[in-house]
Amino acid sequence: MEKILLVVFDGLGDRPVSVLNGKTPLEAAVKPNLDALAARGMVGLVHTVGVGIRPGSDVAHLGLLGYDPHKYYCGRGPFEAAGYGLDLAPGDVAMRGNFGTVDKDMVITDRRAGRIDDASELVKAFDGMEIDGVKILLKAGVGHRVAVVFRGPGLDSGITEPDPHRTGVKVREAEPVGGGPAARATAGIVNRFIRKTREILSGQPLNAKRMEMGLPPANIILLRGPGMLAKFPPFADRFGMKAACVAGAGLYKGISRLLGFDIISVPGATGKPDTDVSAKVQAALTAFGTHQFVFLHLKGTDVLAEDKNPLGKKEFIEKADKAFGLLMDRKDMLIAVTGDHSTASALGMHTADPVPLLISGTDIRTDRCGSFGETGCAAGSLGHIMGVNLMPVLIDQLGKAPLYGA
Amino acid sequence: MEKILLVVFDGLGDRPVSVLNGKTPLEAAVKPNLDALAARGMVGLVHTVGVGIRPGSDVAHLGLLGYDPHKYYCGRGPFEAAGYGLDLAPGDVAMRGNFGTVDKDMVITDRRAGRIDDASELVKAFDGMEIDGVKILLKAGVGHRVAVVFRGPGLDSGITEPDPHRTGVKVREAEPVGGGPAARATAGIVNRFIRKTREILSGQPLNAKRMEMGLPPANIILLRGPGMLAKFPPFADRFGMKAACVAGAGLYKGISRLLGFDIISVPGATGKPDTDVSAKVQAALTAFGTHQFVFLHLKGTDVLAEDKNPLGKKEFIEKADKAFGLLMDRKDMLIAVTGDHSTASALGMHTADPVPLLISGTDIRTDRCGSFGETGCAAGSLGHIMGVNLMPVLIDQLGKAPLYGA
Repeated sequence: MEKILLVVFDGLGDRPVSVLNGKTPLEAAVKPNLDALAARGMVGLVHTVGVGIRPGSDVAHLGLLGYDPHKYYCGRGPFEAAGYGLDLAPGDVAMRGNFGTVDKDMVITDRRAGRIDDASELVKAFDGMEIDGVKILLKAGVGHRVAVVFRGPGLDSGITEPDPHRTGVKVREAEPVGGGPAARATAGIVNRFIRKTREILSGQPLNAKRMEMGLPPANIILLRGPGMLAKFPPFADRFGMKAACVAGAGLYKGISRLLGFDIISVPGATGKPDTDVSAKVQAALTAFGTHQFVFLHLKGTDVLAEDKNPLGKKEFIEKADKAFGLLMDRKDMLIAVTGDHSTASALGMHTADPVPLLISGTDIRTDRCGSFGETGCAAGSLGHIMGVNLMPVLIDQLGKAPLYGA
Repeated sequence: MEKILLVVFDGLGDRPVSVLNGKTPLEAAVKPNLDALAARGMVGLVHTVGVGIRPGSDVAHLGLLGYDPHKYYCGRGPFEAAGYGLDLAPGDVAMRGNFGTVDKDMVITDRRAGRIDDASELVKAFDGMEIDGVKILLKAGVGHRVAVVFRGPGLDSGITEPDPHRTGVKVREAEPVGGGPAARATAGIVNRFIRKTREILSGQPLNAKRMEMGLPPANIILLRGPGMLAKFPPFADRFGMKAACVAGAGLYKGISRLLGFDIISVPGATGKPDTDVSAKVQAALTAFGTHQFVFLHLKGTDVLAEDKNPLGKKEFIEKADKAFGLLMDRKDMLIAVTGDHSTASALGMHTADPVPLLISGTDIRTDRCGSFGETGCAAGSLGHIMGVNLMPVLIDQLGKAPLYGA
C-alpha cells in the first residue's frame, strides 16, 4: 500500500432515533461495502477536536487532516474566504457574511434577505473598494452568503461580530476585543464598510426589482467570524504525500487549498444530498494517478441531519455505499472512512459524540467488528483517538511514519 | 503483593502475517503461561510514546519506566554511552558511532568496516585524548559500534550528524543547529576529532592486517545521535521501590543505570534470540531478595521481526513462555508483560501500532480475555494507555500510589 483514501461523511455520527427503531442512521443503513471495509480492518471512535468538544466542520477538518485545531484555527472567515476561491495574503482579515435586510433604523428584519438566490450581481458593486488605504475584496457564495477580505497594513482580527445573529435588533458596531490600535483601526474600517453596504446596496436595481415583487431587499452585509490566516506547513511536507481534495462544498475546498492540496473539480459534486457520489469516487481514483493522498468529502449526511431527516441521512449513506463498490478490489490503498463530527438528526445540530472510524487495508491489524456503526466502533481495536491522531496512524499503516528516538 | 516484575519483549506487537495464517506471532505462539497470566488479570494496549508515534526503543523504554519521553529524551548518544558503561557527567556531549571505511577523499565505502568483529583494540589508541581542553572518552560496543563522550566546559549537543547514513558520499562536517557559540565550538571539536580518527586509525596494526586479508580497514569513526543527559529523578525516589535490571543489550542497561537501577549481570544473557531466558528469569527472581522492582528485558522478538522472521519471533515467544513457568506460582508479585513498541515482521520495521499489555496478580481486577494477543488486548479492561501511564497503574495495584487531593 502506497496510497491513502480518506472519506469524510460530514456529520456522520448520530444518536439512536425512534423512526429507525432505535438505531442510528449509520447503523440502520444497508451498506454492504462499508461493512466489508470495516471487517477487513480496524474500527474505533474519533473525537475530532477533543472529548466533549462540539466541533464546527472547519476545526474538525483541521484535526482530521493532521493540524491541531487549537494551534491552527483562526476563525471561520479565512476558511470560508479560501473556500470561495479568494487567495488570502498574510495580514488579511477575513470575515464571512450574509446579505440581509434592515429597516431605516438598521434593525434587522431578515438575516438572509429572503434567502436570496444569487447575490453575485450585488457583489460587483463593491469592485475596487477601499477605505483608508485598506482594500476590501468580496466574493459571493451560495445564496445569501458572502466572504469579505480586508487587506492592508496594521489590521487585526480581534474584533467583535457586527452580526447579532438574530432579527429585531440593530446591526452591532464591531469593537476591538483586546484594545490594541490595530484591532481598533480594523473595527473602525469594518463599521464604515457595513454602513457603506447599506448605501451602495440600497441603490441597486436588483433590490428595486425585489421590492416591486414584494421580496425583502438585500440592503446590508452582516459580518461574522473574523480571522487571520495561520501559517500552515504544507501537508506534503508534513506527511510526504501529494494530496488532492474531491469536495462539493466551499469550506472543504478552502481548507484543502490552505494546506496545499490540489482541488479536483467534479461535475455533479454539489455539496448537497443530490451530489453524484459515483462521479466523486471515480474522480478520487483518477486522482491517485498523480497523488498519494485523496480527501473525499460528502456533505449530504450533515445537511440531512441538520434538517432533522434521519431517514434521508440513512438513504444518503446507502447511496454512497453503492458508489463505494468501485473501491472494494483496490489492494493498493489504505481506505479510512469517518466523519468530522456527529450531527444528531433528532436535534438537527452538531454534537460532541465521537465519530465512527474505519481503517481498511492489506496486512493491517483487524478486530472483531464486522459492521460499521456507532455501537460496534465503540468496541473496536482503535479505541478512542483524537482527530489529530488520525493522520499519524494512517501514515504508520503504510510503514511511513517518522521514527521518534532510535 | 509487594513486588513488581516488568517483562518487556522488545518489539512485541506485530501485524497479521500470512505465513502464520493471518495471525500475529504473539497470537500464533503456543504460550500457556502467558495466556494464564492474562487470564488471571487485565489486558490492554499501550502507546508507549503516543498515539500514532513510531518509537525507538530508547524513548519507548523511558515511557514504560515512567519518564515522559517528551520531557526526558536527550538523543540516543547518552543512552548508548551509558549502556556501554561510560558514566556520564552533567555537561557531557555523547554520540554513538560506527567504525567505518572511507577512501582517501573521505568518501564512505563501508559504514561498518566490513562488520568488524571487535574494535576494542582500536579504541585503546584514543586513550587520554584531548582537543582544546575537551576530554574525549571512547568505549567500544558490540562489533563496529562505539560510544564517544566529549567532556569539557561550554559544550552543546545542538549539532548536525557527521554520519550521512549512507555510502558513496563524503563524511559530513558537523554544524551548529541553533548558531550559539557552545554548539559552534562543539561542532568544531567533533570535526577535528573525526579527522583525527582518520589519522590515528590508518596507522593501526589491526588495519594493516585487515587490508592484507582483503578486508576493509576501520579507518574512520562515523558519529551520530548527539545528546546531553537530562536530569533523571531516581526511580527509587519517584516510585518508592529499589529497582534492578536484567538485560542483555547495552541500551537497556544504560537507560536503567541512568534511572538508578542496579544492573544484574547474567551469564548467557546475550541480547539476541539465543539468550538464556531461564537464566534471566531466575536472576530476576533472585534479585527480588534485595529489590522490589525488576525490569526484565528480552531483545529476541525485535531482532527476529527486524529480520522479517515472524516464525522465529513466534518461536522466541514460545521459548520465553516455557521459562515463565518459574513465575506461575508466585503470589507475592505483580507481573506485567508488554513491549516497547510493535515491530511488523512483514516490514522489518518498528510501527506505531499499540503494544499488547497484561497485568497479572492477586486480588486485582480481571477481564474476559483469556489469551495474550493483539486482538484480545484491544478488547481488554485496561483499554488504551500511554507508556507513561504504566508505572502509576502498576504501583496502584500494590496499593502504593500517592494520593492526589484529599
